[in-house]
Amino acid sequence: MPTPFERLLPKLQELTDIGSACALMSWDQAVMMPPAGAAQRARALSTLQGLLHDRLTDPAIGELLAELEASGDEDLDVQASVRVLRRDHDRATKIPGRLVRAIAEAEGLAYQAWTEARPAADFRLLQPHLERLFGLKKEEADALGWEGERYDALLDNFEPGMTTAEVEAMFSSLTQGLVPLAHEVLDAAGPAPEVLSREFDPDIQMRFCDRLAQALGFDNDRGRLDTSPHPFTIGIHSGDVRQTTKADPKDLLLSVYALIHETGHALYEQGLPERMADLPAGRVPSLGLHESQSRMWENQVGRSRAFTDFLLPLLKEQFPDQLGMMAPEEWYRAVNHPQRTLIRVTSDELTYNLHVALRFELEIALFRDALEVSDLPEAWNDAMAEKIGLRPPSDADGVLQDMHWAMGAIGYFPTYTLGTLYAAAFFDAALRDLAGLMDDLRRGDGSRLLAWLREHIHRYAFHMPAKELGEQVLGGPLTPEPFLAYAREKYTALYL
Amino acid sequence: MPTPFERLLPKLQELTDIGSACALMSWDQAVMMPPAGAAQRARALSTLQGLLHDRLTDPAIGELLAELEASGDEDLDVQASVRVLRRDHDRATKIPGRLVRAIAEAEGLAYQAWTEARPAADFRLLQPHLERLFGLKKEEADALGWEGERYDALLDNFEPGMTTAEVEAMFSSLTQGLVPLAHEVLDAAGPAPEVLSREFDPDIQMRFCDRLAQALGFDNDRGRLDTSPHPFTIGIHSGDVRQTTKADPKDLLLSVYALIHETGHALYEQGLPERMADLPAGRVPSLGLHESQSRMWENQVGRSRAFTDFLLPLLKEQFPDQLGMMAPEEWYRAVNHPQRTLIRVTSDELTYNLHVALRFELEIALFRDALEVSDLPEAWNDAMAEKIGLRPPSDADGVLQDMHWAMGAIGYFPTYTLGTLYAAAFFDAALRDLAGLMDDLRRGDGSRLLAWLREHIHRYAFHMPAKELGEQVLGGPLTPEPFLAYAREKYTALYL
Repeated sequence: MPTPFERLLPKLQELTDIGSACALMSWDQAVMMPPAGAAQRARALSTLQGLLHDRLTDPAIGELLAELEASGDEDLDVQASVRVLRRDHDRATKIPGRLVRAIAEAEGLAYQAWTEARPAADFRLLQPHLERLFGLKKEEADALGWEGERYDALLDNFEPGMTTAEVEAMFSSLTQGLVPLAHEVLDAAGPAPEVLSREFDPDIQMRFCDRLAQALGFDNDRGRLDTSPHPFTIGIHSGDVRQTTKADPKDLLLSVYALIHETGHALYEQGLPERMADLPAGRVPSLGLHESQSRMWENQVGRSRAFTDFLLPLLKEQFPDQLGMMAPEEWYRAVNHPQRTLIRVTSDELTYNLHVALRFELEIALFRDALEVSDLPEAWNDAMAEKIGLRPPSDADGVLQDMHWAMGAIGYFPTYTLGTLYAAAFFDAALRDLAGLMDDLRRGDGSRLLAWLREHIHRYAFHMPAKELGEQVLGGPLTPEPFLAYAREKYTALYL
Repeated sequence: MPTPFERLLPKLQELTDIGSACALMSWDQAVMMPPAGAAQRARALSTLQGLLHDRLTDPAIGELLAELEASGDEDLDVQASVRVLRRDHDRATKIPGRLVRAIAEAEGLAYQAWTEARPAADFRLLQPHLERLFGLKKEEADALGWEGERYDALLDNFEPGMTTAEVEAMFSSLTQGLVPLAHEVLDAAGPAPEVLSREFDPDIQMRFCDRLAQALGFDNDRGRLDTSPHPFTIGIHSGDVRQTTKADPKDLLLSVYALIHETGHALYEQGLPERMADLPAGRVPSLGLHESQSRMWENQVGRSRAFTDFLLPLLKEQFPDQLGMMAPEEWYRAVNHPQRTLIRVTSDELTYNLHVALRFELEIALFRDALEVSDLPEAWNDAMAEKIGLRPPSDADGVLQDMHWAMGAIGYFPTYTLGTLYAAAFFDAALRDLAGLMDDLRRGDGSRLLAWLREHIHRYAFHMPAKELGEQVLGGPLTPEPFLAYAREKYTALYL
């Protein structure tokens, strides 16, 4: 007689398989697909996500879950998976299949519209798609149910258990410390170093990025690197983790630091336990935790003086004409040059969180019905002028710069800042545990840090909620203090 | 009250969507996927093909088909789709879902084993997978049922309505005329021109191939070109047709002629009526017809004196050092140099069909239980020695050279020769209809030929069986005579 878990497993494998098809179709949509494939791809993704939803809400899964909850299987993977699947099943059951399909299709069309609207700098191409999508996402929030406010229901998709009020408080405490520091540093830092506007062959950039990812521990046998307009990482499944970067001939730092960032995500995906590949608990427990890895590798590692000292000679080999005369100190300052920029992904560590705060505020306003989609470009530009002190000359550098909303990722942006805060706090813990870590990084050796992350974070997958895992690593709750202390120390030394 | 067809349509769209996910997963498996993704991809493809099978065999489809057959819808697309779906539904209903899943998984694993066995020249890596796969395909044949012999059931997958006996007779009549001609020409042709062994930068080859495909009418907005170990074309769906070629630095002709060949397939896929994208009859009616297009573009067009005169100056621009001194006549002879080669895909027009005959005979022998998989390498080598006069020094250049069997494509090979025969016969018909066609080709202009193919072949999709469509175009049944006459005339002028 098979156990309830043995009867559940084939259903879990089918969920994994359909999910991996969806992941591949999404990756291909952003990286490979020809333009005329867009409409049918949107429909096909919608069909498969509908199938996934049908399978996840199968009453037979509900019955097996009830059996497993009653039986108390002693395997920790099973226990965690029962908790995660219960959450997924209950949430999915609340959303009608019709709505799931409509959202998937609207997301595909909005994403395609975004790829056309951004180069055309024409928000009107995207607007009707966003209106439909935000309307559908409000329906989704209401179907899921919420206590405090509607946005809570969507935030919970990405950061389970976190509320809008908590995030608002976290942003408030962070910006209180950060805003005076950031503007003081910005005023002192002066214009961007000239080196950043030289020409760097994109093919050489990509070959360098490919080697750098592998040097940091990314396993090319279990993943691949490509280019896309907006860098991202996606796990197709446990043996196939794909990341992208963007190679702009006028911006060497973009490709290199997007690559280090995405490699952080990819290392987390590649570090999840293989044995849990088909289990609901075999995944990263929150986007904030996911982002903690990418931002730690990008900033605490990648932008440290130790690591920039390691990178510079390697880059000089690739770009002797452009970088041959560069001194280590000059390079370190260039990599950490803070500036008032319109673009989140090219912004520095200090202002990055102001860019995120702007998006979070606009999302909440849209969800509180305090803002119309049609007023979004203007509201964006006003907020940018107020927070960063710049006004976008075109929507291409304003509201159209990120693909997230067009992909239906609403409730997603605040996790970037949660990731920033976790990154600084986790790195402090790693520094305490690993004597000589900065010397490792000066040799380009991240292997002890990666082993530490595998041991303290990756191997747990979704064995417990992100908040609990964070507290286990940190020995207490997350606060903005480690990040503020790190930023204050680093940028005071650099510029004040 | 919706008509039966209106009730059927959402089910057809779902079939299209799941089918396009499977096509994408297969393409990605051959072109993009990292090695560690193989096992899970095999399982996921198996799961999705099982889903497709479940949907296709849905009794509700059987009921709607019966309604549609009784109601006699006057729309020709609907009529054709009812016939095609009836055939698909009945065939799928005969194969148990368990067997469909097992075959899909075995194919994925065998394909992966082939990608390892070929470079290692080790048939034993592939053998257990092939044994399992051939065993499963025999089960499939028996489940489908057959009258003459078991192989008929699989041949019918690729060439609906054609029997093993008919194909054997066609091969017999063809080889009777071809063998004496081929060997006479081979003896007279001498060694391969030295130019064919020079070095050609693969990146330049690929950029040239990309432009050549577009010059022939391939629409990059509705498809893409990549590289893979074995060139192929796949329609993900109507707006997304993907082809591959292979760029070998030692073999310029391989990339260029594989590209022209695959472009022939891709133009057929891109020429299918957009309005039929979701309909069962919206596809190519047989592989022999599919191959007629690829071989016509490759040989009747691509290897004609007119087209080689067009190609040479363009290639000289790309490869001035290697081709600068080449005379048009010398180039034409190089492109059409017949030789005793071990490799089907690099063989010439004359011996190509002997390579196919070898495979067809081995397949039949396996299916008639007259040959064991373990004896395949030896049987292959013996047949190659007998037919071509060469013995493979390693299985990499013998039984491991083609991926077809490892992908479960059994009954597929003979369609290559049917395609050869159709290509010659169709091109004769086009030459009669289009005065000055060879002058078009001398300018590299295939647009009138493409329009003719669209008009006489592509636009019909699967409105009628391939045999009927062939007879409509040719005004009578297919015979090997047009191909034999073409080959005799061309190669007599060249070498005898």
